[in-house]
Amino acid sequence: MNRPAPASELLRKPFPAELLKSLQARFGGRVSTSATVLEHHGRDESAHPIAPPDAVVFPANTAEVAEIVRLCGKHGVPVIPFGAGSSLEGHVLAIHGGVSLDLSRMNRILAVNVDDLDAAVEAGVTRKQLNQHLHDTGLFFPIDPGADATLGGMAATRASGTNAVRYGTMRENVMGLTVVLADGRVIRTGGRARKSSAGYDLTRLFVGSEGTLGVITEITLRLYPQPEAVSAAVCAFPSVDAAVRTVIQTIQLGVPIARCELLDALTISAVNRHSKLNLREAPMLFCEFHGTAASVAEQARTVQEIARELGGMDFEWATKQEDRTRLWQARYEAYPACRQLRPGNRAFSTDVCVPISQLAECIAETNQDIATASMPVALFGHVGDGNFHLVVLIDPNNPADLDEAETLNQRVVRRALKMGGTCTGEHGVGCGKLDFLDAEHGDAVSVMATIKKALDPDNLLNPGKVVRS
Amino acid sequence: MNRPAPASELLRKPFPAELLKSLQARFGGRVSTSATVLEHHGRDESAHPIAPPDAVVFPANTAEVAEIVRLCGKHGVPVIPFGAGSSLEGHVLAIHGGVSLDLSRMNRILAVNVDDLDAAVEAGVTRKQLNQHLHDTGLFFPIDPGADATLGGMAATRASGTNAVRYGTMRENVMGLTVVLADGRVIRTGGRARKSSAGYDLTRLFVGSEGTLGVITEITLRLYPQPEAVSAAVCAFPSVDAAVRTVIQTIQLGVPIARCELLDALTISAVNRHSKLNLREAPMLFCEFHGTAASVAEQARTVQEIARELGGMDFEWATKQEDRTRLWQARYEAYPACRQLRPGNRAFSTDVCVPISQLAECIAETNQDIATASMPVALFGHVGDGNFHLVVLIDPNNPADLDEAETLNQRVVRRALKMGGTCTGEHGVGCGKLDFLDAEHGDAVSVMATIKKALDPDNLLNPGKVVRS
Repeated sequence: MNRPAPASELLRKPFPAELLKSLQARFGGRVSTSATVLEHHGRDESAHPIAPPDAVVFPANTAEVAEIVRLCGKHGVPVIPFGAGSSLEGHVLAIHGGVSLDLSRMNRILAVNVDDLDAAVEAGVTRKQLNQHLHDTGLFFPIDPGADATLGGMAATRASGTNAVRYGTMRENVMGLTVVLADGRVIRTGGRARKSSAGYDLTRLFVGSEGTLGVITEITLRLYPQPEAVSAAVCAFPSVDAAVRTVIQTIQLGVPIARCELLDALTISAVNRHSKLNLREAPMLFCEFHGTAASVAEQARTVQEIARELGGMDFEWATKQEDRTRLWQARYEAYPACRQLRPGNRAFSTDVCVPISQLAECIAETNQDIATASMPVALFGHVGDGNFHLVVLIDPNNPADLDEAETLNQRVVRRALKMGGTCTGEHGVGCGKLDFLDAEHGDAVSVMATIKKALDPDNLLNPGKVVRS
Repeated sequence: MNRPAPASELLRKPFPAELLKSLQARFGGRVSTSATVLEHHGRDESAHPIAPPDAVVFPANTAEVAEIVRLCGKHGVPVIPFGAGSSLEGHVLAIHGGVSLDLSRMNRILAVNVDDLDAAVEAGVTRKQLNQHLHDTGLFFPIDPGADATLGGMAATRASGTNAVRYGTMRENVMGLTVVLADGRVIRTGGRARKSSAGYDLTRLFVGSEGTLGVITEITLRLYPQPEAVSAAVCAFPSVDAAVRTVIQTIQLGVPIARCELLDALTISAVNRHSKLNLREAPMLFCEFHGTAASVAEQARTVQEIARELGGMDFEWATKQEDRTRLWQARYEAYPACRQLRPGNRAFSTDVCVPISQLAECIAETNQDIATASMPVALFGHVGDGNFHLVVLIDPNNPADLDEAETLNQRVVRRALKMGGTCTGEHGVGCGKLDFLDAEHGDAVSVMATIKKALDPDNLLNPGKVVRS
C-alpha cells in the first residue's frame, strides 16, 4: 500500500566492500551500482518512496542465483528478487538495503508440453512473452494482471487479474517451482502430475511468499486450450449497484464467465480519453465468454437476460479479435488512464476482495467515502471474484493528500474484513499491507513468522515484507 | 502403502497413568481404552498391521481438541487425529502409541452461505452428510473419494477422487481452516473471499499435512451450483489403450468432463458380480457430463466421436438419476468388489498419477507387470487426471504375497516418477509412501522436515507420517 516505507536509511548497514568485490569478480558487468539502475530497482508502481538497493546483479541461471544468495548470506546482506517492477505494495523496495536480484535475463522458455497442457519457464519470462511463444500451439496461459509482469513475480505475489474468475489465480496454475533457499540450496517443488498428495504443498507455500522464503527461479505452469470461440461485450448500467447485482447473479448461477470487470463512470471517462473510445460514461461491465460457439452464445444470453432485468442496456459486442484487443487494452490501461485525470498526480491504489454476496454493499459504502473525498477516486475491478480497486489521485507535494488516501484505504480494508473479505485480493502484502495482516489472520500471523524464521533464520530474503522484522 | 509398520511396540513409551486420569477426569465417558475401540482406531483400509493407540478421546469442539493437545503435550504423548478411518496409507496408525483424537462427534454444519457458494463445517462432518444437508439449496460439494470420509480427513489428506478432473481436489476447494497447533493454540487460516494475496498460504500448507502440523477442526469449503443437466454414460473399448487415448484427447481438447473413470475388464467383472450389473466385460470408461442441457449434449457428442474413432462402442446412457446413482455406486464399490475376487484375501492398493501424455504408456507397462503377477490384480482409476490404482489381492497368511505386492507397487511408483508423475495422486503419504518422497522431491523433503520441526518441535502430532521421525 502506500504509507511511507520505514525511513530506510536508518535500517541500513554499510554495504560490505568485500561482497561487492566478490560479486564484481564473479559477475563482471552484470553487477551494477549506477545510481539510475539502483533507483530503478528501488521502486515499484506504488506510491511508496524509493528505497534503492546497494547493488543490482543480473544472474543468468539458477546456479548463479544460488551463488549470489550464498555470497550475500556470508556477509549478512539482504537479497531482494526483482522481476518487472510492476508490483503495487512496495515488494521490491530495498528497505534494509542489500542486493537486488534482477531475474529479467532469466527469460528462457524451458519446455512446452502441448499434450500435457503445461510449460516450464525461467522466472524472468513475462506472461506476454509466454503467450506469444504459445501462439501456434493452440494453448494459452490465462492469468493476466494487466501489467506485462514476469511469471516469477506473478508466482511470488500470487497474482491474478482478469480471467481469474474462470481460470483461477497463480495459486491454481503453478504446478511446480525451482526455488533457491536462504542457504543457497536449490529445491524443486510440485511436479507435472495434475494432482498429488505427496507431502506438504511447498509449491503453494512459495506462491505468494513474495521472495521472503526463497527465490523462485523456474516455474511449471498449467496451460489451457485456446477456446474455440471467444466473445466480449460491454454493458452500461444505470448504477454501480445494478452492475454488481448482475455479476452476483451470474456467479451464483454458475455461468463459467471468463472475465467480468466493473468500471465506474469516472473510470470510463478516463479510459475514453486515454484510449480514444466512445463508451457511454456510465457504470459498465466488460464481459468475456470462452467455450464452444454454442456454449459462448448460451452464456452470453444468460448474462444479458440477468442484466436486462436489472436495468442494463443491450450488450455491445466485440466479436472481432482486434475489437476485443482494443477493449481489453483499454481495461488494462484504466490505471494509467486514471492517473491522467489529474496530470502530475500519483496513483494510490487499494485492493480488497469480499465474498460476492457482500460486494454490492461494500461498493455502495465505499462510494459514500468516495463522494466525500477531496480528490478524484476511480473504482474498478475484477468483480466476478468480489475484488475491486480504488485509484486515488494524490498530489505528491501535498502530504494531506497521502493522509487522506491512507485513511480511505484503511476504511475500505476494515470494511472488507468486517464483511469476511481480505485486505488484498491480488496485490499482495509487501510492506504496504503488513499492518492489516493481524486484523485479518490473528494468531495465524505468528505461524507465518515461525515459518519465515525456520526457512530464513537470518532474515535476509526480502526482509520487512509479508512478516514483520 | 503396505509395507508393515515399524514394530510399533518398540517405539512406544509407557502411557502415563496421570494423563489418562486427567483425560478421564475432564472427558469422562468420552475417553475409551476398551480393546475394541483401540483396535478400531489403530487401523485404516490399508494392509498395514494394526497399531492401536493407548486411548481414544471424543472431543465435542475445537476448545476441547486444544485441551487434549495441551494435556498430551505436557506428557510428551503423541496425538493422532481420526476421522472415518477410511485412509489407505496407514495415516491413523498409532505407531508410536498415544491418543487417538476421534473427531466424528464434531459433526455440525456451522454455516451454509448459499449466495457465496460456501459452507463451514466441523471436521467430523462427512461428505455425504454435507450433500444431504445441501440437497434443497441448489448447491453441492463435488469432491468424492468414494468412501464416506469426513471432510476433516479429506482436507488432511488432500483427497480427490471422481469429479476432480472438473472441480479440482481438496487443495482447490478448501477456502479456510480452523487448526489446533501443537502447543494448543487455535488459528484460523484463509477466509471467505474467492481469492487473497494476504500472506503465506497456510490453508494449502495444512491441507495434505495429514495431522502432522496441526489438528484441523473446522473447514470452510467451496460449493457449486447443482448443474442444470447431468448425464452419465459407459463406453466399452477393445483395449485399455484405446480407452486411455480417448481420455487423453478429451482432456487435451479442453472438454469440461466432470468424471472420467477407467475400469479394466477384471474390475468390470468384479463390479458385475458385486453390484449385480450386466456390463460388457471389457475395458470401460464411465463418463459424466455437467452443465446446461445444450452444453452436456455437446460435450457428450465430442467425447463419443473421439471414442468411436478409437474403436469404442456406442455410449450406453444413464439419464435417470437412479440409473446414475447405481452406476456410480458400482464404481465406488470397485474396491470391495475386487476384494471379493478372492474371498478372504486383503486388498493392497497402489496410487500413482502421471502427466496425461504418459498415461497410456504407464498403464501399458503396468499391464505387463500385472500379466506376470501370481494373484489377481485389478486396474481402475480417475484417468482424466492421469491417476490410477491397482488392487492387488493378497493372502494375509502368505508373506510371499505381500512381498510380491510391494515389489509391484515399487515398480509402478518408480515408473510413474520416471514419467514425471507422483508416488501418490490422492491417497497421501501416511507411513506407507515415506520411502518414495525422497525419490520424488529430493532436497525439498528436508524443507518439509524443517517446517514440521518448526511447527511441532516435540514431534507429537501424528509422528512417523509424511516426514520421517
